[in-house]
Amino acid sequence: MEEFSRLHNIFEQTKEAIGTFMGMLQPIIDNAQDEHTRLYYHHIYEEEEQRLERLNELLPTLEGIIQENRGDQLSNRELSRLLSDLNLERFGLHNFREHLELAMYEFTADEDRERLKNMRDMTQSDYLAVKEIMAALSERVDDVAVGKLVDHDEGHTIHQVDHAKASAKAQGKAIGQTDQPGESAKEAHRLSKVRRGLTVGSLRHL
Amino acid sequence: MEEFSRLHNIFEQTKEAIGTFMGMLQPIIDNAQDEHTRLYYHHIYEEEEQRLERLNELLPTLEGIIQENRGDQLSNRELSRLLSDLNLERFGLHNFREHLELAMYEFTADEDRERLKNMRDMTQSDYLAVKEIMAALSERVDDVAVGKLVDHDEGHTIHQVDHAKASAKAQGKAIGQTDQPGESAKEAHRLSKVRRGLTVGSLRHL
Repeated sequence: MEEFSRLHNIFEQTKEAIGTFMGMLQPIIDNAQDEHTRLYYHHIYEEEEQRLERLNELLPTLEGIIQENRGDQLSNRELSRLLSDLNLERFGLHNFREHLELAMYEFTADEDRERLKNMRDMTQSDYLAVKEIMAALSERVDDVAVGKLVDHDEGHTIHQVDHAKASAKAQGKAIGQTDQPGESAKEAHRLSKVRRGLTVGSLRHL
Repeated sequence: MEEFSRLHNIFEQTKEAIGTFMGMLQPIIDNAQDEHTRLYYHHIYEEEEQRLERLNELLPTLEGIIQENRGDQLSNRELSRLLSDLNLERFGLHNFREHLELAMYEFTADEDRERLKNMRDMTQSDYLAVKEIMAALSERVDDVAVGKLVDHDEGHTIHQVDHAKASAKAQGKAIGQTDQPGESAKEAHRLSKVRRGLTVGSLRHL
């Protein structure tokens, strides 16, 4: 049951961060000096808006499970469905982290950068927490395919480029470290191919 | 039944376009002269990769329905589930269109721009077709909530900025027109608020 409360906290927290980020982007969009900048931030704004809408559907589902104390009684179907939704939001957190890192190029004031950095660090830790909770939940699904569930996001977490470090460098500040700085892009790609097998995505249409 | 074949064609077609687009982005990422450019296109590349993975799950579902001739016999639950997945891919097509429009700033060769423009136009027409098919399918769902289903993407289709026109202007070429060029951003926002009610997203957790 504890997992569902943790998930709820994470998604409430990231929902608040979306609001903060949108509030930061809006004046950039409104005052953009060129169309490319405007299109670019408007596009990021919209993607976060889409994520917000999804979270507004997912949060009540989690609340229902918590309030009715049903965490341990979910059917295979419900759990598979939930894992599929969580997987989507795991990618959502990953993409949000990158949106924040990209925005660091736009914002130069210390206060703004600190805010972005804090949200970035929080998002990275949320991302890892969701991954961990998903692994625990997937063990409960009574299905051979799920027993073999493997993590298939190496290609996404081990970057060809270190977003945070790169944007820090560009601004001459230390922002953070990569998750797994030792692995090269090629190695990551190779591992991703090797490890990729059954995915949570394959639960989607059970 | 015809709807499912149309959907299948659309998603096969966009899957091929993702491959073409990724092939265009890879050398930009590999040869980027600055980290910001590299991060930026790598991020877009990853988002399209995520979409590709989702399509690789959705296409077999559609194939199953077509082969077994079950289009008219889907249960409420199956249809709701499918509508929820289609809604996600509708946003995916919208985002892809914007990725293509943003990429028009990077590619200056006529041949590349023509390719991007063709994919952009195809994607826009796919987006509208999916919207139309979704409206038809949602009428079949035997549920009061779905009967009232309203389109809630005005905020996404009516842009504050006209992406295609803007990138065309930036490059001094005519690329295309907006869907609804007459409506201002404020009006779009107002309409979006008024029209937003029950959404396909709300089917997600039925």
